[in-house]
Amino acid sequence: MNFDYNEEQQLLADSVRRFMQKDYDFEARRKIVASAEGWSPPAWATLAEMGLLGLPFSPDYDGFGGGAVDMMSVMEAIGEALVVEPYLPTVGLAAQFIARAGSEAQKKAILPKVVAGELKMAFAQTEKGARYDLAHVATAAKKAGGGWQLDGTKCVVLGAPIADQLVVSARTSGKAGEAQGISLFLVERKAAGVTLRPYRTLDGLRAADLMLKGVELGADALIGPEGGALALIEQVTDFATALVCAEAVGAIKHANDATLEFLKTRKQFGVPIGTFQALQHRMVDMVISLEQARSMACLACSKVDNEKDSGERRRAVSAAKIRVSDACRHVSQEAVQLHGGMGMSEELKVSHSFRRLTMIALQFGDADHHLGRFAAIPARAA
Amino acid sequence: MNFDYNEEQQLLADSVRRFMQKDYDFEARRKIVASAEGWSPPAWATLAEMGLLGLPFSPDYDGFGGGAVDMMSVMEAIGEALVVEPYLPTVGLAAQFIARAGSEAQKKAILPKVVAGELKMAFAQTEKGARYDLAHVATAAKKAGGGWQLDGTKCVVLGAPIADQLVVSARTSGKAGEAQGISLFLVERKAAGVTLRPYRTLDGLRAADLMLKGVELGADALIGPEGGALALIEQVTDFATALVCAEAVGAIKHANDATLEFLKTRKQFGVPIGTFQALQHRMVDMVISLEQARSMACLACSKVDNEKDSGERRRAVSAAKIRVSDACRHVSQEAVQLHGGMGMSEELKVSHSFRRLTMIALQFGDADHHLGRFAAIPARAA
Amino acid sequence: MNFDYNEEQQLLADSVRRFMQKDYDFEARRKIVASAEGWSPPAWATLAEMGLLGLPFSPDYDGFGGGAVDMMSVMEAIGEALVVEPYLPTVGLAAQFIARAGSEAQKKAILPKVVAGELKMAFAQTEKGARYDLAHVATAAKKAGGGWQLDGTKCVVLGAPIADQLVVSARTSGKAGEAQGISLFLVERKAAGVTLRPYRTLDGLRAADLMLKGVELGADALIGPEGGALALIEQVTDFATALVCAEAVGAIKHANDATLEFLKTRKQFGVPIGTFQALQHRMVDMVISLEQARSMACLACSKVDNEKDSGERRRAVSAAKIRVSDACRHVSQEAVQLHGGMGMSEELKVSHSFRRLTMIALQFGDADHHLGRFAAIPARAA
Amino acid sequence: MNFDYNEEQQLLADSVRRFMQKDYDFEARRKIVASAEGWSPPAWATLAEMGLLGLPFSPDYDGFGGGAVDMMSVMEAIGEALVVEPYLPTVGLAAQFIARAGSEAQKKAILPKVVAGELKMAFAQTEKGARYDLAHVATAAKKAGGGWQLDGTKCVVLGAPIADQLVVSARTSGKAGEAQGISLFLVERKAAGVTLRPYRTLDGLRAADLMLKGVELGADALIGPEGGALALIEQVTDFATALVCAEAVGAIKHANDATLEFLKTRKQFGVPIGTFQALQHRMVDMVISLEQARSMACLACSKVDNEKDSGERRRAVSAAKIRVSDACRHVSQEAVQLHGGMGMSEELKVSHSFRRLTMIALQFGDADHHLGRFAAIPARAA
Repeated sequence: MNFDYNEEQQLLADSVRRFMQKDYDFEARRKIVASAEGWSPPAWATLAEMGLLGLPFSPDYDGFGGGAVDMMSVMEAIGEALVVEPYLPTVGLAAQFIARAGSEAQKKAILPKVVAGELKMAFAQTEKGARYDLAHVATAAKKAGGGWQLDGTKCVVLGAPIADQLVVSARTSGKAGEAQGISLFLVERKAAGVTLRPYRTLDGLRAADLMLKGVELGADALIGPEGGALALIEQVTDFATALVCAEAVGAIKHANDATLEFLKTRKQFGVPIGTFQALQHRMVDMVISLEQARSMACLACSKVDNEKDSGERRRAVSAAKIRVSDACRHVSQEAVQLHGGMGMSEELKVSHSFRRLTMIALQFGDADHHLGRFAAIPARAA
Repeated sequence: MNFDYNEEQQLLADSVRRFMQKDYDFEARRKIVASAEGWSPPAWATLAEMGLLGLPFSPDYDGFGGGAVDMMSVMEAIGEALVVEPYLPTVGLAAQFIARAGSEAQKKAILPKVVAGELKMAFAQTEKGARYDLAHVATAAKKAGGGWQLDGTKCVVLGAPIADQLVVSARTSGKAGEAQGISLFLVERKAAGVTLRPYRTLDGLRAADLMLKGVELGADALIGPEGGALALIEQVTDFATALVCAEAVGAIKHANDATLEFLKTRKQFGVPIGTFQALQHRMVDMVISLEQARSMACLACSKVDNEKDSGERRRAVSAAKIRVSDACRHVSQEAVQLHGGMGMSEELKVSHSFRRLTMIALQFGDADHHLGRFAAIPARAA
Repeated sequence: MNFDYNEEQQLLADSVRRFMQKDYDFEARRKIVASAEGWSPPAWATLAEMGLLGLPFSPDYDGFGGGAVDMMSVMEAIGEALVVEPYLPTVGLAAQFIARAGSEAQKKAILPKVVAGELKMAFAQTEKGARYDLAHVATAAKKAGGGWQLDGTKCVVLGAPIADQLVVSARTSGKAGEAQGISLFLVERKAAGVTLRPYRTLDGLRAADLMLKGVELGADALIGPEGGALALIEQVTDFATALVCAEAVGAIKHANDATLEFLKTRKQFGVPIGTFQALQHRMVDMVISLEQARSMACLACSKVDNEKDSGERRRAVSAAKIRVSDACRHVSQEAVQLHGGMGMSEELKVSHSFRRLTMIALQFGDADHHLGRFAAIPARAA
Repeated sequence: MNFDYNEEQQLLADSVRRFMQKDYDFEARRKIVASAEGWSPPAWATLAEMGLLGLPFSPDYDGFGGGAVDMMSVMEAIGEALVVEPYLPTVGLAAQFIARAGSEAQKKAILPKVVAGELKMAFAQTEKGARYDLAHVATAAKKAGGGWQLDGTKCVVLGAPIADQLVVSARTSGKAGEAQGISLFLVERKAAGVTLRPYRTLDGLRAADLMLKGVELGADALIGPEGGALALIEQVTDFATALVCAEAVGAIKHANDATLEFLKTRKQFGVPIGTFQALQHRMVDMVISLEQARSMACLACSKVDNEKDSGERRRAVSAAKIRVSDACRHVSQEAVQLHGGMGMSEELKVSHSFRRLTMIALQFGDADHHLGRFAAIPARAA
């Protein structure tokens, strides 16, 4: 049992943080978010140069052969700096399907480009009314002309407007809600029949609703076995959930630091010392929330990397997400309150941490969803 | 013991709600907030016509002789409709000082105009670093030329930019933090030496920081006894705190109604029924929060009207504010979460209820402040 | 709107508290609980002499014509002194059925004796697996020989071992869970076929499981209309629930007082003053819990007395029970913790308040049950 | 980063659990607690045979060279079975001082006997009014006749009545509260001048208050350097705190298992399925509490073993204790409630888990204490 980064991981964490502090401060981010594209090509290039885009992929495809634990420090830094580039959609979600279930040809065509920063991706999964049910896929994939034809609609696809390639879940048999019959397809974002309704989410990320109308794909667009993708979707979603827990840790850290800084300033302006003690108590509660969130995020990342039993993996991820979602709510709310309401002002970075934390609390399932999921998984006999 | 409105109060409540639903819906409010002035003269005129501006004043000055309990339904309606006109600053705060401690001449000059809707007011009290300490008044009032001269700075004076007259607390002796030596003055907003830095608060209200530089006042500007205003300031602030608790009840009611409506719509779009049960449970928690907030708001309003013992009054107001602040936080946070993050979108009214509730949780002291105040008041022997 | 006792109610409250402090202190209670019978005839006689047993009954039967609000101070005092005599089972439950639905003959035979302290009663309702579902009645009442014959089993009948008469719910048609078909019967505790398995509950009260085997009753044993008792059972249970909320207020008050006293003593022995501040904060939270519990208990008592709309009545009672159950748990747990674990020692009265509060949190339904009930009642259109 | 036991640790965990299930079930424990001595020599002998008493000591003294992580499974099993033998006082506290700071002679004399189960120990530290302040030591140690003389009083010394040797903290200079001047001494429990007032704590453990009156010790009774023991006391107390967190995990596990079992039985007896869902939700919350407590306990054990920076170690231990204390309260309270009050009945093991959990929440400092301690430790620059 060992809870610390190894030396290599620590070096990585340090260099990522240095980059963020230097080149991705609040003012830089503000400009990126305000730009027409809503993301920064130079920032993405730097992530590639630093090797961050290759972290979880095999060296066979120019990657570093790491796992969620190795990506934790990157996700924390992303959360702290509120990075809007599509790191999670590309590296943590869409490309994972290729890496885990793609054909050799798919891997060769996709992964080295992802690693090099030449290819951005997004995972189009959620549909209307699905809430967090991963089996709720109604988008249809029919065999047509030796390949496939896709029809359906996907909602809130994070990173879609700036992705080059999409991984789309669709049903090759059965109906929405059934476990069997879901398949995955690689689709060019600019393919004929793909229409995007792009927008920005409340936390400044690029997203889109996706209309697929008679989208024609070759036979080689299928990722993994036909009809049996649900387990893989669950696995990759758990992987991404563990990563977003780590991102939350970073965003919580910023909210805590900013609040502490604000209180110190207030103190200089003469807040009575007795009052300050009550505030300090609340600050400590926020720090404890941070420690617990980090501890659970570590556990979840470790489990998605190493746990063979899928039930145990899912329990660990859900337990972490429950705790992290609670921490997101606790810390974001306290940050706003302790800033005396200023925490909602757009001019302060903490208001954007507030927004991101509110969304992370919901991403891949809120605490209620994961409580329900946790309850449904039988515990391994001890 | 009796918890219901009497017939007259019920009639009033009904007519106020009808007015708000007809003439102050979200679209109407949006336009008012977006206007240069940030308030609506016609709406203010209607409040006057309906008699709402005269509710708590003596019939001798055209009022109706009511109290906080009679104003509760107005405050609830204001909270539900998110009214931005300065009802609380004028009727619940500034004019209260005149009504309770003003000279006959002051009453005659001010109150009938307030009742008629011809005079708006604001209470300039808070100073930098005061947090919620009402004795933290450093603004100086010196005797000068048979009258007074005021110098100092006030922060976050709600309603100031649109007020005609200000009630300003200032120190005629002693120093910031001392109980003795605080006096109240009636000051024209446009008087020489009064400079405003106006802005909008995060919940869309008009407010200003106030610079007072050599402001010359006549002897008759003094309200009440020289140097002994603190008890009155506490009394009126408690009165206004009880009223803002009632406003919170209305804002919570809207947040609950909007969330329930949103969930119903989602249900139609196919949210699995099992999931819906967990959501319903959270909805009920929100409704319970509403009931408890209302019960405590009623108690506080009743006590500020009838309780002779100032300790008991303060305990009741603090207990209510603690509970109401908690309810504000609970409900606003849940509303955002149950809206799946949409609760932060400016296009939805609920996002504005969220902002108002966040500010009410802090107004006149957050839960921590009132816990501390409550702890410091000895309980009456039972 | 008015939250205070009237003069008469205040006088009653004062005299009840005086009696308890003088004649029902912890040592006196200890002896009563340790006695074979587990209750005190002299104490019961005094309750009668003081008029407390007649509070909610009509003057036609020697009562005082009061309601739940008039009984509140008695229930608070019972909670504070941890009175074990069957006041609630007799006056608040069983005799209520006679008073509300009994025939003139039943009223004449029962109520004056109850008022005089000559007749104790209990209400036998709960059956195995019913949890808090009042329609879950399987005990059978069959017509037989011009009267009735009862067969079935009842659990945890509070006060049964010392009751003279029982009110028993039984099914004259339909089956367990159905709304129609439940009737009420007056049964002598010593009637042939009635067997008791008496015991003490964990909070020191007398209770029994009740076996009814071929119990023969006359036609005049039926209380109210045949088969239509459920609404009445709900009404009386709501009445008793409001009363037990008031009892909780008293027990919470004792737990708070004892904890404050304990902390003061500890302070003398040198607890560092900084530490004491954190403790004081927790004490204030306990007092706020008390105030909120009292406010909701008042509201519930007022509603069971005056509210015509049964839905509104039930919502108010459930809202109160939710809050009071939470307060019971919060305060009892804190009392034990702040006593440094000594709060579980049998030698301290607070450990018995702890036990009683734990049971009250469950009595007539825990917070979860009432959340569910509340959710199921449509709100009256505002 | 790695959160799992290694193979050896897993084997140990399995064998310890098997022993507890076979030889230390609730009935066996009941008999041990009811015995005059209040502990079981055969059980202690078995712990020795299994090598558990030597886990954290050097092989030079017959130990196994392990740390807190290696002891976790033993502590969990102790918590689950509610073992009353003085494992923590002996192995986790008193003997640790010898192992960490004792002279070679002391180690040789003490440790092999501890490992062999021939010597039980206790750590006498707490004094009246100290609360959790480890520097609050007033017991005096004066140089006398080439050795030392001890005078003072110690409270709630766990394991003292059955210990052979005591480690006693005493002041060789300075006064209560000061960091400098505290020393440690090895004292025979039966030494002249040592008087015990033995009792059982509310959770069935043996403890004693200790009067030291002119206790004469040789020069070789001093453990470690004169006057500089505070850092060591903090270190060992952190070690024991991490272990008691692991014990809590076991006790929580039992409370959860028993509650789940109870609910299943209730379900068979016909609890409506809708109700059961709400109960299940609460059960899941309990399981999440367990997972989080375990995760934080692991972290704390890992840190006390490996962390060089004492600030980081203390922060980790306090963060764990805060979370574990909260979990103790949450789970113990829910277990009682979900048992419908039966959770307080002495006949059920869960009532004893309740008692132990209540005490663990306080042991070595409650959540408030550790919040304060955490706040006072500056975080290491990240």
